[in-house]
Amino acid sequence: MAISPELEHPRKAFGLAAKDSSGVLSPFIFSRRETGEKDVRFKVLFCGICHSDLHMLKNEWGNSVYPVVPGHEIVGEVTEVGDKVQKFKVGDKVGVGCMVQSCHSCQNCNESLENYCPKVILTYGSKNLDGTITYGGYSDTMVTDESFVISIPNSLPLDAAAPLLCAGITVYSPLKYFGLDKPNLQLGVVGLGGLGHMAVKFAKAFGAKVTVISTSPNKKKEAIELLGADSFVVSSEQDQMQAATGTLDGIIDTVSAVHPLLPLIGLLKSHGKLVMVGAPEKPLELPVFPLLMGRKIIGGSLIGGIKETQEMIDFAAKHDVKPEIEVVSADYVNTALERLLKADVKYRFVIDIGNTLKSS
Amino acid sequence: MAISPELEHPRKAFGLAAKDSSGVLSPFIFSRRETGEKDVRFKVLFCGICHSDLHMLKNEWGNSVYPVVPGHEIVGEVTEVGDKVQKFKVGDKVGVGCMVQSCHSCQNCNESLENYCPKVILTYGSKNLDGTITYGGYSDTMVTDESFVISIPNSLPLDAAAPLLCAGITVYSPLKYFGLDKPNLQLGVVGLGGLGHMAVKFAKAFGAKVTVISTSPNKKKEAIELLGADSFVVSSEQDQMQAATGTLDGIIDTVSAVHPLLPLIGLLKSHGKLVMVGAPEKPLELPVFPLLMGRKIIGGSLIGGIKETQEMIDFAAKHDVKPEIEVVSADYVNTALERLLKADVKYRFVIDIGNTLKSS
Repeated sequence: MAISPELEHPRKAFGLAAKDSSGVLSPFIFSRRETGEKDVRFKVLFCGICHSDLHMLKNEWGNSVYPVVPGHEIVGEVTEVGDKVQKFKVGDKVGVGCMVQSCHSCQNCNESLENYCPKVILTYGSKNLDGTITYGGYSDTMVTDESFVISIPNSLPLDAAAPLLCAGITVYSPLKYFGLDKPNLQLGVVGLGGLGHMAVKFAKAFGAKVTVISTSPNKKKEAIELLGADSFVVSSEQDQMQAATGTLDGIIDTVSAVHPLLPLIGLLKSHGKLVMVGAPEKPLELPVFPLLMGRKIIGGSLIGGIKETQEMIDFAAKHDVKPEIEVVSADYVNTALERLLKADVKYRFVIDIGNTLKSS
Repeated sequence: MAISPELEHPRKAFGLAAKDSSGVLSPFIFSRRETGEKDVRFKVLFCGICHSDLHMLKNEWGNSVYPVVPGHEIVGEVTEVGDKVQKFKVGDKVGVGCMVQSCHSCQNCNESLENYCPKVILTYGSKNLDGTITYGGYSDTMVTDESFVISIPNSLPLDAAAPLLCAGITVYSPLKYFGLDKPNLQLGVVGLGGLGHMAVKFAKAFGAKVTVISTSPNKKKEAIELLGADSFVVSSEQDQMQAATGTLDGIIDTVSAVHPLLPLIGLLKSHGKLVMVGAPEKPLELPVFPLLMGRKIIGGSLIGGIKETQEMIDFAAKHDVKPEIEVVSADYVNTALERLLKADVKYRFVIDIGNTLKSS
């Protein structure tokens, strides 16, 4: 017999959960485990709203287990640590991203690529080691193995730090892995949402010239003036695309809708790299000849490992790379999700959990 | 007014040409230029029959200019050299592959990647610097800028050397570029024709464990016993494909028919690389999620540069990497092309031009 979420662990917790595929969030009383010897317990202060939260709330990927407490861009302050915790102490500012556990023994784990561990446990909607379902950061507290806890540098505002833990690392990691972090490269960013705007900022911080490729001409001014892009190409304008043909060393493609790859491959120089970080549900059309003609590659990348996430956060603090956020209160979250569905946000919602999530 | 091929250059030449899109080869009298100061003139001894010859003969890529004299796997003996030729002398054994000229000034040329030069001049069916059409190696003589002439080591049989100049470099180059030349890797080869059988041999020479993935169970014995593959997977057998899931560091995909990529992506380990060297005419279906989940890439590669082609030939000589060939006479070439269309060749036809091409 299944034990209710309220009773399955000894410590009370409170959050916002979708109870069914309507995806509407409502108050949810549940529980969390005791602070284990390697665990860090923290009070959640801010949590970003990621587009994947929408998919999971509505069971659009078909694997949601209700109730769903979303949230994997979580920042807070440590309240307890286990006896064997070495890196954190009470009062530290910390973060948790998309993962809370992995196998610690596979080749990916050995290389600090826990994100590619076949047994990775996601921050919410995954099965925990004890068989219970993981609940995310739209909640008052978190308790997480210190191996999956990130230290937030003092110079980084906590609200802006939250989206770095998913949107930030998702674009930072492929820029590094695919060698697109060298100065003076010509880089493209497709799509200008939560991920895309971070890709522009990190690419600029690495010293690249950045071209935004977008379907929306009205994003041009802000892409250049606010985000720092060097140029802007409207993907539906043939002459603009033609002028940019063969100019880019790499492209970060953040679009998760089905879209044509051929024009993007055409923007690449020889040996250029098109990296997908959005995940269209249906297959895209891949023209092979254009890949061959320029020895081009299409790659995919999924968030990043814990070591690299810490490196990314430290880099962001040092180079003042911060997402553009709209901080909202907990009671606004359903409205925020509706707006996110319409792409009506510049560029990431962050919930002020610490001040506005009330259990009464 | 166009000058006839017989008169446009001072030196007589003879070969086999298709006069129209029937693709049937017949005797063809034409001419070649004088030996320029940087040119190497050589008597053609052997020429391989590449699958792309079939496409060009029948204008299946839509860019053929008749008459077409095919052949870009050409080996012969030097008969004349220009005053400024430094690397070759009369009597040397030499080869010419898919290219005879490039711009010498673009970034690709500067990096000895002439194969990706936008102004590359192909060995046949391209426009030469003087505006005439290039004619390939199904002919008695060649005259080529020494920059595009390969030295054939004495230890390599001349007939077997010919297919290395296209089929060989086409698989060698991506194995090197994509880091698949390290010992003890697990590599897959899809398709077991001219390219595929060379991919098996080079991969083995690099020290890999090689799995052939094929639609034809009857190729298994030969793949293992003759070519040296370590294992063989029939792509239509679900249980065999399942057993090989996640086992390969890289795959060289030589198939130019439309085929599904998802099962091949599934064979790759995390961070694995699927490299296309065949060019299906229609786009393939690319499932993006599986790329993301393992940070996998799909790349393309097209022959190789001249420096690397020389390196490949020297490597082949040193490690005794030779194609399996069926040597045919010039008057058999139309039959050979018909058999090639039916994949009835193990694994490459080579025309004995030197002994059998007669102008009478």
